[in-house]
Amino acid sequence: MIKVGIVGGTGYTGVELLRLLAQHPDVELTAITSRSEAGMPVADMFPSLRRRVNLVFQDPASAGLDQCDVVFFATPHGVAMAQSPQLLAAGTKVIDLAADFRLKSLDEFSKWYKIPHTAPDLLEEAVYGLPELNRKAIASARVIANPGCYATAVQLGFLPLVEAGVADLDHLVANAASGVSGAGRKAEVGSLFAEASDNFKAYGVAGHRHLPEICQGLEQAAGRKVGLTFVPHLLPQIRGILATLYARVSPDIDVQALYEKRFAGEPFVDVMPAGSTPDTRSVRASNMVRIAVHRPQGGDTVVVLVAEDNLVKGAAGQAVQNMNLMFGLEETAGLTHIPVLP
Amino acid sequence: MIKVGIVGGTGYTGVELLRLLAQHPDVELTAITSRSEAGMPVADMFPSLRRRVNLVFQDPASAGLDQCDVVFFATPHGVAMAQSPQLLAAGTKVIDLAADFRLKSLDEFSKWYKIPHTAPDLLEEAVYGLPELNRKAIASARVIANPGCYATAVQLGFLPLVEAGVADLDHLVANAASGVSGAGRKAEVGSLFAEASDNFKAYGVAGHRHLPEICQGLEQAAGRKVGLTFVPHLLPQIRGILATLYARVSPDIDVQALYEKRFAGEPFVDVMPAGSTPDTRSVRASNMVRIAVHRPQGGDTVVVLVAEDNLVKGAAGQAVQNMNLMFGLEETAGLTHIPVLP
Amino acid sequence: MIKVGIVGGTGYTGVELLRLLAQHPDVELTAITSRSEAGMPVADMFPSLRRRVNLVFQDPASAGLDQCDVVFFATPHGVAMAQSPQLLAAGTKVIDLAADFRLKSLDEFSKWYKIPHTAPDLLEEAVYGLPELNRKAIASARVIANPGCYATAVQLGFLPLVEAGVADLDHLVANAASGVSGAGRKAEVGSLFAEASDNFKAYGVAGHRHLPEICQGLEQAAGRKVGLTFVPHLLPQIRGILATLYARVSPDIDVQALYEKRFAGEPFVDVMPAGSTPDTRSVRASNMVRIAVHRPQGGDTVVVLVAEDNLVKGAAGQAVQNMNLMFGLEETAGLTHIPVLP
Amino acid sequence: MIKVGIVGGTGYTGVELLRLLAQHPDVELTAITSRSEAGMPVADMFPSLRRRVNLVFQDPASAGLDQCDVVFFATPHGVAMAQSPQLLAAGTKVIDLAADFRLKSLDEFSKWYKIPHTAPDLLEEAVYGLPELNRKAIASARVIANPGCYATAVQLGFLPLVEAGVADLDHLVANAASGVSGAGRKAEVGSLFAEASDNFKAYGVAGHRHLPEICQGLEQAAGRKVGLTFVPHLLPQIRGILATLYARVSPDIDVQALYEKRFAGEPFVDVMPAGSTPDTRSVRASNMVRIAVHRPQGGDTVVVLVAEDNLVKGAAGQAVQNMNLMFGLEETAGLTHIPVLP
Repeated sequence: MIKVGIVGGTGYTGVELLRLLAQHPDVELTAITSRSEAGMPVADMFPSLRRRVNLVFQDPASAGLDQCDVVFFATPHGVAMAQSPQLLAAGTKVIDLAADFRLKSLDEFSKWYKIPHTAPDLLEEAVYGLPELNRKAIASARVIANPGCYATAVQLGFLPLVEAGVADLDHLVANAASGVSGAGRKAEVGSLFAEASDNFKAYGVAGHRHLPEICQGLEQAAGRKVGLTFVPHLLPQIRGILATLYARVSPDIDVQALYEKRFAGEPFVDVMPAGSTPDTRSVRASNMVRIAVHRPQGGDTVVVLVAEDNLVKGAAGQAVQNMNLMFGLEETAGLTHIPVLP
Repeated sequence: MIKVGIVGGTGYTGVELLRLLAQHPDVELTAITSRSEAGMPVADMFPSLRRRVNLVFQDPASAGLDQCDVVFFATPHGVAMAQSPQLLAAGTKVIDLAADFRLKSLDEFSKWYKIPHTAPDLLEEAVYGLPELNRKAIASARVIANPGCYATAVQLGFLPLVEAGVADLDHLVANAASGVSGAGRKAEVGSLFAEASDNFKAYGVAGHRHLPEICQGLEQAAGRKVGLTFVPHLLPQIRGILATLYARVSPDIDVQALYEKRFAGEPFVDVMPAGSTPDTRSVRASNMVRIAVHRPQGGDTVVVLVAEDNLVKGAAGQAVQNMNLMFGLEETAGLTHIPVLP
Repeated sequence: MIKVGIVGGTGYTGVELLRLLAQHPDVELTAITSRSEAGMPVADMFPSLRRRVNLVFQDPASAGLDQCDVVFFATPHGVAMAQSPQLLAAGTKVIDLAADFRLKSLDEFSKWYKIPHTAPDLLEEAVYGLPELNRKAIASARVIANPGCYATAVQLGFLPLVEAGVADLDHLVANAASGVSGAGRKAEVGSLFAEASDNFKAYGVAGHRHLPEICQGLEQAAGRKVGLTFVPHLLPQIRGILATLYARVSPDIDVQALYEKRFAGEPFVDVMPAGSTPDTRSVRASNMVRIAVHRPQGGDTVVVLVAEDNLVKGAAGQAVQNMNLMFGLEETAGLTHIPVLP
Repeated sequence: MIKVGIVGGTGYTGVELLRLLAQHPDVELTAITSRSEAGMPVADMFPSLRRRVNLVFQDPASAGLDQCDVVFFATPHGVAMAQSPQLLAAGTKVIDLAADFRLKSLDEFSKWYKIPHTAPDLLEEAVYGLPELNRKAIASARVIANPGCYATAVQLGFLPLVEAGVADLDHLVANAASGVSGAGRKAEVGSLFAEASDNFKAYGVAGHRHLPEICQGLEQAAGRKVGLTFVPHLLPQIRGILATLYARVSPDIDVQALYEKRFAGEPFVDVMPAGSTPDTRSVRASNMVRIAVHRPQGGDTVVVLVAEDNLVKGAAGQAVQNMNLMFGLEETAGLTHIPVLP
């Protein structure tokens, strides 16, 4: 059994990690920390975990995280880079679900996250935890930068086109929409039910933090700069991201075949039959991503639809998938839940 | 492995059965029938099941249901009583998720369901599948009448009071509210998103079909007639029932202790600490029921809150629980999913 | 034109007042105050008001509220009782949408609101602004205590029974459910979309602040103490309250006739035909209350259903109705909007 | 007073017409027809209209529609083209909210709507009722083709760019999302609450009926062919369309100024300040459209956001606006309702 610790388990990513890890056949949940809630049973905060998770939130100082085999950081950015060096020195691996290790450029990091990076060595060492792109490197990593929710969906959706070099890479468009859980369990007016329900809007049009992350991944795959217009939107639903991607691709390319080949054998990427329109509920509470490709009116614009659960493949599930790879477990261990529909 | 068939798998109860059974360690899904959809892969109708359920809807005539160990009926009422005799004769057990075997009185059945009962012998033999009430009888039953969704919540909530004989049984009040999935996957105007969303209303005030079922159960427990006012409501959410029950109980009765004792050891009934207010999401997609009891201002009226997922403990999950009991499996087998929150 | 000021216009009650008053034929919106947002155009906070409300939030000190004919307080409790004496001295009338003047007993006020009352004289003078109960007194009042949202629905629903003396007043039950806007525009975790959506729960079972207010009104009407069990619930919708009331009433009482007679001529109370089940959307964004009475199975328990928009008849609309009465305007002026459905 | 008739008032467009027209100062609602519901009071079907609309659904044959000044068709396509000639002969004007008169090409009509056109003369005569494009022609029209909901939002959003000739017209992208009310009040599984709630998906990617309508309008404005990729999506909310439009526009064009100038003086188009992100609730239940333009990272791709209430400016409200123009009324008469927020 792998001993697992969680830092910062009071948010939605944290409770989703708890749900997945408590049902994982190879995991022993050892410690969960929260400075503000130290002493409170986890199940008092999240009654869904009553009878299943008996942990109590602990103060980080006394939680014994360095006795764990791996620690997940479900914290705001800035925490993982501060605490990781000590854990790694003790032989504990790290999976950061925040952004501390996602951007390889220190300048880009401080530009988008408004703080200096305090562990540049780890930034270099860290592996970007998108298994469909970096599976081998993940298996031998000590530090994983778990991808952002939008970044996962958009990269997976564009990768086959970018890797094959068949799209106009200067004018990619990613129109994406996320459920409100993506904003976290923070008390903010904009995330109130009476604000977000029965409502839809774009946000972050001038620049969202997942933009440089997406570009970095696509540029690595393309071996050149890409031009991407990325517009996120806020959906009146709890979970789910749908990315609707637009790219110019010469009409003679068989995009359906391209996608089927690229993702053949991937346990968590389902390329649907031509003409499909994946809905977010078809992946609700599961680690699966469903993709469909279209070429409307047979023209030179390809539309790629990507459905993902932002809390699972977009966060906690992908983190567990990375853990499985890092520890030589079955990649799908603990991640086989069938989506909940309706 | 138990060979399982499902009759009528195109509704919400059906797809929920498929989700649970496909993940059940002791089950082999053998056949699923639908006259209207014969030939269609199940996963084409419910993409959430892609890669996990490879069955194709079959015509009932050629599905070989009588080769199964047990058949679940997820059909409108009237179907199970017509097809069960033949299955039973072939040694196949039956679990009916509709109402054919719920009401012991032929008169009550035809009064509430507007059709005559065509299998009165089976009606007598059938066991009402509420494990917390009839666990032993279920274990040896050939035919199970799986309880209604409201009926499960309301009976579980009142049982301790009724069995202990401490409530005014002439004036029980059950105010209950259900998510829209309780109305089934039928194309009806009243269940449209644009009708049911951002809206709340009572319905069936003059008499809902679960009323006689609830009274039958409570009267069996009480050994006398009970007077119950039952008002169901329609919630703007997909899953979940909350029953808010009111009963007059002498102030000297310790209801918290009464409930804890009554349900001690029950794997799927969680009596919460005094003062709790269970929410429906704390049981979402799980077979757990959570109950809290209150005595506002220390008066003579007790309030019992019961949260249930109407598709799981209120339908498919309870049916699987009954199957487990009938076949001597672990009662919780295939039913240990942690609720999905948020 | 009546000059109107609003104190504290940044919440849902405030923006609803603005919507109604900006369309009121006899009103001139003169000032709106917010200490925290002074200087910001109202329409920057609420884009729905662009081109229609040109006011800028002002600091209370310089807003000239005492030049208004009437000031609405859409503030937390405690504010109106502090600022009203000065306004009244200047000849400005006051309508408080919070609780400062609702409870006649100083002890009850400090027990439920945890602060001492600083204007006991005004408490005595203030008129409880439920027009269907106190129309005449409202017309000549200087200070109005605008009723709570639940309190409006529950009192209107019970009044005919209580006034007629035909119900068992010791065991009234009020099961009520409200949309999330009732919790206000405060950044609190419990009101987040990802917490409140697809979810239903009771709260405040041990004692909600509207309980003493309801009892005070019913006791005034009954001329005796009443025993009420009041359980509020939180609905996954923005607007709307449905109160489902239970009372024991002798079977020989024609409750339908009783209600029709009691509310005959009331402009904002619609007693629906027997058998109706009013839904909250049938009053959405309007000042109308719809009521239906039932006697299930002809028994001795009567069920009264009351649908209300908590922000209109439960708050801002009723406040405008009170203003209309106080200034001798048509009672329905500015309140004739047809409900928005769907 | 203008005498108004409505054909087919049992859908969402119909009830919205009723809400608007019943509050219109210059309108007398004279007749409403429904073959299936003849004899039923309108307010029995839509309780929101109780006390405000006393009409009874009439059989079309006996409704006296030809006595009206204008008749609105809120029917499936095919009805208006069959009944209009007779009405026009009687001097009654026609506003069709369906698609019968939208596409000028008979071939395109029969290609997209699968029926032959039976009134080609009227097709030629009919004026496309987008006031911001055709105000003058509308004023003198006898037959109005009221635009589609998506078509209104997308055309308004692209018009300034297209008219100014500053965009790459071969590669326009319109990503749009609509509330479920856009699917009408038809009993279909896909529109059920339990299907559409907490869910998001694209649909009609291969070709939606509003595509040729949008292209026709843009091509008229451009004087040349345009290439448009249009992907509609289904939102889990009742009302509201948000169109997110992408176009390549040379960086030296000041798009903010272009839009402000184009829509200056328009009563129902609100060009918001640079950087704004209009949300659908900011126009809920109103005839206003809000537009914001962005140029992310100062690049060559412009993003235009358009928020609209699909039932008002996207259907009934625009129809009333057209009526106002046709009869020389104030263009905003009956359409001044402030949006309902929250």
